[in-house]
Amino acid sequence: MATARSVTLKAASTSLWSLNRSSPKAKTVRALSTIMSPPSKAVVYEHHGPPDTVTRMIELSPVEVKENQVCVKMLAAPINPSDINRVYPVRPQVPAVGGYEGVGEVYSVGSAVKGLSPGDLVIPSPLSSGLFFAPFDRLLLFCFECLKFKIGTWQTYVVKDHDTWHKISKDSPIEYAATITVNPLTALRMLEDFTTLTAGDSVVQNGATSIVGQCVIQLARYRGIHSINIIRDRAGSDTVKEKLKALGADEVFTESQLEVKNVKSLLSNIPGPALGLNCVGGNAASLVLKFLRQGGTMVTYGGMSKKPITVPISCFIFKDLSLKGFWVQKWLTADRTKECREMVDYLLRLAQEGKLKYEMELVPFGKFHTALDKALGKHGSQPKQVIKF
Amino acid sequence: MATARSVTLKAASTSLWSLNRSSPKAKTVRALSTIMSPPSKAVVYEHHGPPDTVTRMIELSPVEVKENQVCVKMLAAPINPSDINRVYPVRPQVPAVGGYEGVGEVYSVGSAVKGLSPGDLVIPSPLSSGLFFAPFDRLLLFCFECLKFKIGTWQTYVVKDHDTWHKISKDSPIEYAATITVNPLTALRMLEDFTTLTAGDSVVQNGATSIVGQCVIQLARYRGIHSINIIRDRAGSDTVKEKLKALGADEVFTESQLEVKNVKSLLSNIPGPALGLNCVGGNAASLVLKFLRQGGTMVTYGGMSKKPITVPISCFIFKDLSLKGFWVQKWLTADRTKECREMVDYLLRLAQEGKLKYEMELVPFGKFHTALDKALGKHGSQPKQVIKF
Repeated sequence: MATARSVTLKAASTSLWSLNRSSPKAKTVRALSTIMSPPSKAVVYEHHGPPDTVTRMIELSPVEVKENQVCVKMLAAPINPSDINRVYPVRPQVPAVGGYEGVGEVYSVGSAVKGLSPGDLVIPSPLSSGLFFAPFDRLLLFCFECLKFKIGTWQTYVVKDHDTWHKISKDSPIEYAATITVNPLTALRMLEDFTTLTAGDSVVQNGATSIVGQCVIQLARYRGIHSINIIRDRAGSDTVKEKLKALGADEVFTESQLEVKNVKSLLSNIPGPALGLNCVGGNAASLVLKFLRQGGTMVTYGGMSKKPITVPISCFIFKDLSLKGFWVQKWLTADRTKECREMVDYLLRLAQEGKLKYEMELVPFGKFHTALDKALGKHGSQPKQVIKF
Repeated sequence: MATARSVTLKAASTSLWSLNRSSPKAKTVRALSTIMSPPSKAVVYEHHGPPDTVTRMIELSPVEVKENQVCVKMLAAPINPSDINRVYPVRPQVPAVGGYEGVGEVYSVGSAVKGLSPGDLVIPSPLSSGLFFAPFDRLLLFCFECLKFKIGTWQTYVVKDHDTWHKISKDSPIEYAATITVNPLTALRMLEDFTTLTAGDSVVQNGATSIVGQCVIQLARYRGIHSINIIRDRAGSDTVKEKLKALGADEVFTESQLEVKNVKSLLSNIPGPALGLNCVGGNAASLVLKFLRQGGTMVTYGGMSKKPITVPISCFIFKDLSLKGFWVQKWLTADRTKECREMVDYLLRLAQEGKLKYEMELVPFGKFHTALDKALGKHGSQPKQVIKF
């Protein structure tokens, strides 16, 4: 039955594609034939540098779809901060196609591929991208290991081994499918992995307007957990507060509102949080620490202010706090494949049911650089930019 | 048999003491008789304030030794930083007798006491002093709970419930018995509780010249674990290095020696440590973080520099470090009674065998205030001050 797979090419426009055989009996012929991908348009970078100057869109020639490989027609892919900022200690080898997350439709499959058929909706398997992490001390090695498995979602067609792809429900909303693996998964894991939170408990976070922050609010609320949210002081902060409360936030404070002796006195009927989430650093991290209750844990998953975290000694000795970090790409290890795919499906179901939402702006691939400029913050605060192919 | 206990008073010098009955058959008489302690000399403080001005030595009247109580003649008691500094968030109710640790000899026992006899060597049970810790948020409650069980070791005779005392081997060296519960126990627990270290691993610490630091070096060496030690820059640092190396330190660096790009390049044949211990804060804590390997843990148990700890975001996200705290008085909880007593016995055995040592100065009780001045640092760096009664 393995060789009986029907391989349909939806856009067999060039001569090479006609080599594809769909007859279940044509085993020997297929083995000798060659399935090729369509040519692909891709955003690549050939040097390291500012993303808006080093990236350009090019045409990539068709490549062979080998017997274990799958060609996926990309439908949508976000521009994540992790794609463009320079804090990461690892850089993929150049030249490379940009993009880490995305969603696509199976376009053609190699002769030995089971379980995936043309038309299936797939995302890069959460596992495939993060699997080959070397210890910090040997990160240079990582670049090479990683490259072999890097997807590069900013292109129209991607050909990769079949186990690179995770099939998702065809009903999944495309823009959520394209963005579920990095931010919502981070929010979910941070709520699950560091403390045991049950209904009635609370969590405190800064950077509450980020996509992760919005997911934390909604996932917490969905479990009956209160969220205490810290946002920057800015024009329109009242509107931001209303938005976050509409998502389910219990409390939203600007940093300046928390310049009081005892921040916990501002909480009404919410227990002190055992879990704090920090993606900002600096003063905003100190505020999270102040809210935490005895024995609590602060998890750092970002540093938007580019400032370090300053911790008074008493936080450790008398308040018995723990400080830890979370990086979803490191969390994704081989032994978590199944768990991870289940979580992605769970999150996509929540998105489909309208229980998990966040603002995104869909941008045609042709306008990639406009989207990149927005993602780089050149036009002020903008929704998450998601490329639509 | 419980009532057959022979109670001998060694110094029955005043009239009250003669009430003591030693006859095993005199049950009814004993129940009506009253055993009294000798009068006691004690260092008390009646107000909170600088220890050298608020403490004074007074005479305390004899008190009754009730049926479950034991009167202990103190032999030695240290002046610990925790006895005199003000960083602690809890203050015992005044007036109170000072001192937390110490060793004494059973002087007389109440009629219902089993397992302790006059002449036995005892220390305040590590459990009894730290048991009644309230959560940080309710620390005010603690003061009252604590007071009931506070020993107050700076006095010549102490009468407390029998389970307040832990009998130790009569061969135990007195000055170590008097100081084993706070510093050596801290060192042992920190090596045990946060990471799994096996022979060949390493640990990094600052404040290496402290008693805890010296214990860490020796306990680590005893298990085949390398120690990397950070000390202050000061006159005579070469002598200090030699002393610590004589105790078993593998590497000793002054802070200024570590002003290099990659501190780990200074290590020869020692693996990067998974455990770091910090009792200083500020730059000395940052140096510990720099030594730690991927996924390592820094445990803070003091803040001698009075400076906070500053942590770059990357330590959490990419280096995946955890920061925690340790406070031995909090560690000592009811469910750890047995474990704790075993550890104290283990540490005292090591001390007796000469495998655990640290410098102490024995001072007669009459010169308490001279010792206090030294402990307060008025005369520069001094050995640990231990009162001898």
